[in-house]
Amino acid sequence: METEITVRELAERLGGEPEGDLERQLRGVGPIESAGASEVSFLESARNAPQALVSQAGCLLAPPGVALPDKTVIRVRNPRSAMARAVELFHPPPPRQPGIHPTAVIGDDVAIGTDVEIGPYVVIGDRVEIGARSSIGAGCVLGEQAVLGEDCVLYPRVTLYPGVRLGSRVILHSGCVVGSDGFGYIFENGRYSKFPQAGSVEIADDVEVGANTTIDRGALGPTEIGRGTKIDNLVQVAHNVRIGEHCVIASQTGISGSVVIEDNVVIAGQVGIGDHARVEKGAVLGGQCGILPHKIVRAGQTVWGTPARPLKQHLEQQALVARLPRLVGKVSPPRKRFRREPNE
Amino acid sequence: METEITVRELAERLGGEPEGDLERQLRGVGPIESAGASEVSFLESARNAPQALVSQAGCLLAPPGVALPDKTVIRVRNPRSAMARAVELFHPPPPRQPGIHPTAVIGDDVAIGTDVEIGPYVVIGDRVEIGARSSIGAGCVLGEQAVLGEDCVLYPRVTLYPGVRLGSRVILHSGCVVGSDGFGYIFENGRYSKFPQAGSVEIADDVEVGANTTIDRGALGPTEIGRGTKIDNLVQVAHNVRIGEHCVIASQTGISGSVVIEDNVVIAGQVGIGDHARVEKGAVLGGQCGILPHKIVRAGQTVWGTPARPLKQHLEQQALVARLPRLVGKVSPPRKRFRREPNE
Amino acid sequence: METEITVRELAERLGGEPEGDLERQLRGVGPIESAGASEVSFLESARNAPQALVSQAGCLLAPPGVALPDKTVIRVRNPRSAMARAVELFHPPPPRQPGIHPTAVIGDDVAIGTDVEIGPYVVIGDRVEIGARSSIGAGCVLGEQAVLGEDCVLYPRVTLYPGVRLGSRVILHSGCVVGSDGFGYIFENGRYSKFPQAGSVEIADDVEVGANTTIDRGALGPTEIGRGTKIDNLVQVAHNVRIGEHCVIASQTGISGSVVIEDNVVIAGQVGIGDHARVEKGAVLGGQCGILPHKIVRAGQTVWGTPARPLKQHLEQQALVARLPRLVGKVSPPRKRFRREPNE
Repeated sequence: METEITVRELAERLGGEPEGDLERQLRGVGPIESAGASEVSFLESARNAPQALVSQAGCLLAPPGVALPDKTVIRVRNPRSAMARAVELFHPPPPRQPGIHPTAVIGDDVAIGTDVEIGPYVVIGDRVEIGARSSIGAGCVLGEQAVLGEDCVLYPRVTLYPGVRLGSRVILHSGCVVGSDGFGYIFENGRYSKFPQAGSVEIADDVEVGANTTIDRGALGPTEIGRGTKIDNLVQVAHNVRIGEHCVIASQTGISGSVVIEDNVVIAGQVGIGDHARVEKGAVLGGQCGILPHKIVRAGQTVWGTPARPLKQHLEQQALVARLPRLVGKVSPPRKRFRREPNE
Repeated sequence: METEITVRELAERLGGEPEGDLERQLRGVGPIESAGASEVSFLESARNAPQALVSQAGCLLAPPGVALPDKTVIRVRNPRSAMARAVELFHPPPPRQPGIHPTAVIGDDVAIGTDVEIGPYVVIGDRVEIGARSSIGAGCVLGEQAVLGEDCVLYPRVTLYPGVRLGSRVILHSGCVVGSDGFGYIFENGRYSKFPQAGSVEIADDVEVGANTTIDRGALGPTEIGRGTKIDNLVQVAHNVRIGEHCVIASQTGISGSVVIEDNVVIAGQVGIGDHARVEKGAVLGGQCGILPHKIVRAGQTVWGTPARPLKQHLEQQALVARLPRLVGKVSPPRKRFRREPNE
Repeated sequence: METEITVRELAERLGGEPEGDLERQLRGVGPIESAGASEVSFLESARNAPQALVSQAGCLLAPPGVALPDKTVIRVRNPRSAMARAVELFHPPPPRQPGIHPTAVIGDDVAIGTDVEIGPYVVIGDRVEIGARSSIGAGCVLGEQAVLGEDCVLYPRVTLYPGVRLGSRVILHSGCVVGSDGFGYIFENGRYSKFPQAGSVEIADDVEVGANTTIDRGALGPTEIGRGTKIDNLVQVAHNVRIGEHCVIASQTGISGSVVIEDNVVIAGQVGIGDHARVEKGAVLGGQCGILPHKIVRAGQTVWGTPARPLKQHLEQQALVARLPRLVGKVSPPRKRFRREPNE
């Protein structure tokens, strides 16, 4: 089942210009620092040229103009994108195995499209709809009236609570939970009682959600995730959050209730966003930053820190704080006393 | 199965005073900004009046005294609480289906109360006890000698390690893990060996725990969560933590070993609490704040920042740091040099 | 099945020197503050003597030289380590039950060693290898060609994606996901497309991984975790991360793509490490700290804060910031204006 292909053939498939040993046989892919003589790797720009020059890779996908003497190279416009296609060539996805495993428990009035794949010990509630060619991994639980579009992939052990709706080509990684109750309570007479969470979750086409991420249902309306948005592992999306299209949200970020994130926003890891905040189109939130409740991050702005401020302002402050010991020297520093405070 | 009710009837059920079109038919609930002509919504105070005035909701639950001319309104003392009851009216919980699914694997000497609901592919260890009317979702695994009170709800794919004890009316959301080993090791001869985690977890009545949250067993004594406490998704509760009654703990907060949290504490998202810290009664911990190991947060105090300080003090510091660029102007700022530090 | 043993016998087993009532019967272990008259507890140093003096424990494991008049004591060189052995004595692990549960779904060409234990509703893909005496808990899903060494313990509901490799004596707690796709995309024409994640995960001997932790497969090469490393709950390990031997990584820490962590590193909770950073041998990262992308933390260094700085420097800055209100008094503070900024 192993794929073997010459440099010449690979260049043709990728639409690139080969240089060097065109008949060399290639059998796999690897990272530039460890790829071997029959493996393909890539470099994105001249900045990676030093690594490329010492790489043992049998073939390098490289942008035009980067000098790589004595190397076998395929010149391509976008090496990262070409590499993605090379990886797919050597690591084709496992063949689909349409069919319903005999151990799957299927409820009443379930609509299952053509060529759907349902794994062992899957549990599907009443009136669920699953679009053509979708794949439901072992041990997934789909609550009643959940709806999946076409070509979705649910890895093993995903939970969809009742009524969750997925578009087409949605990928949910193992352990992720969609549609759990939002964290809403009423405090009366010294105790919390549950505010019933009657909304749902709507995930649009081409969304990918990482392992063990949690997405709560809305309290009244839906929680929404827009087309093409990619969410990493262990992210929390609270009730009634609205995330736009083509956003990227890195691991362990937490998005509180009723937050609005517009299109094309980029959010780094471990960011916290307070309830009802709004992150406008194209904003970038730096790692671990904290957006206060009800704040607005303006379109296109890059922010950092807690509370988050525009990057330039944040860096300026940080630099000044770092210089405080010297600055304070100028304003009569009783320094010995400072030292005790961290242990107070 | 749809509920339909007039404004007049709803007012009676909620014990409120109707105004406007009393015969209007209502069929559901919705958020104030998108509720339609047959839907109920609510406003909590005069602050929400502008939204209410442009709302298309067929009926608004509103506090007395907020002017809402031309609207159909039901006046209630606590609109949020009344809304919760309205939601339950239109979205009654799905009918319980007592019984044990034939695929459930049940160990020896298991005690199962009346009207218990056990879903497909549940695995129950020896000597487990499950109180009346509790519901165990598909794919849950209950280790031996786990004990559940009455009316508990375990959503699909919850794990209870052996010996975990739940009170009555405990709700555990999908993917949550209770009773995993605490993170305890002995470092000897250059390697870590496991300190056996022989304690348990005890969760009192009326606790709710979010999706994919993890609660470790104690090393020696128990990990304890007090009555009425609500815990959000992806929270970590380490070994031997003691959490009091009626606390609220938001998503992605981490509570280290042997921390004590007294009653009525409110903890925002992504808070970190170091081992052996104590958070006294009624304290409030702001989002992303960090409590150092062995620290005490005093009763009723609101703290913020890392390391956490009383809110007033923290905000004062932040404001001063924000003004540093201007202040430093007065103490001769070699500003060009600062700019390099963030990239050092 | 209960273990009962005299103080004299326990001292022999632990290789310690008994003092006091040598014939006292012991039946269990407990924390020093709540252990009863038939329970063993321990103290690590003279610092815990006040607790020990008021403890009701029937027997205390104590280091030499700490005065504990009127107490029944066993003197041992390392009380914590001796206590671990005492816990194992009173709480022996449940007897293993080798065998394959009839509900397990086993693929083709699976190699299963002697005395392996496979629980109910486990799903094992084709060509998986499981070493002798390993235990696979209920509801685990092992993707095809996954390889497990000997004496591994997978608690219920663990997912291994295809091709993941575990050494021997690896412990994976419930809900953890190993081998999910790394978070890698190509942004072209206004949308993100997936960079196929073709690498794997390799976990060495004696690693323990906490509940609901996620470890992504490499994009090209592997993600690697070295021998003896211990990882807590809800940690994120991204693609192509390389973690060395005998590291300790506390809960909710996030490690971004291609980070290198050398041997013997200690990482506290909620730490964030940016992509391509390197943490050298023996470094210590303080709770919630943030390591910027591409940064190097030097061998043996202790760092704290975001962005992380050497501990001494960080504490100095914090102390100065805490003193700013007083310092600024000296440079003419228009204080009223500051107060508004937090609400801006």
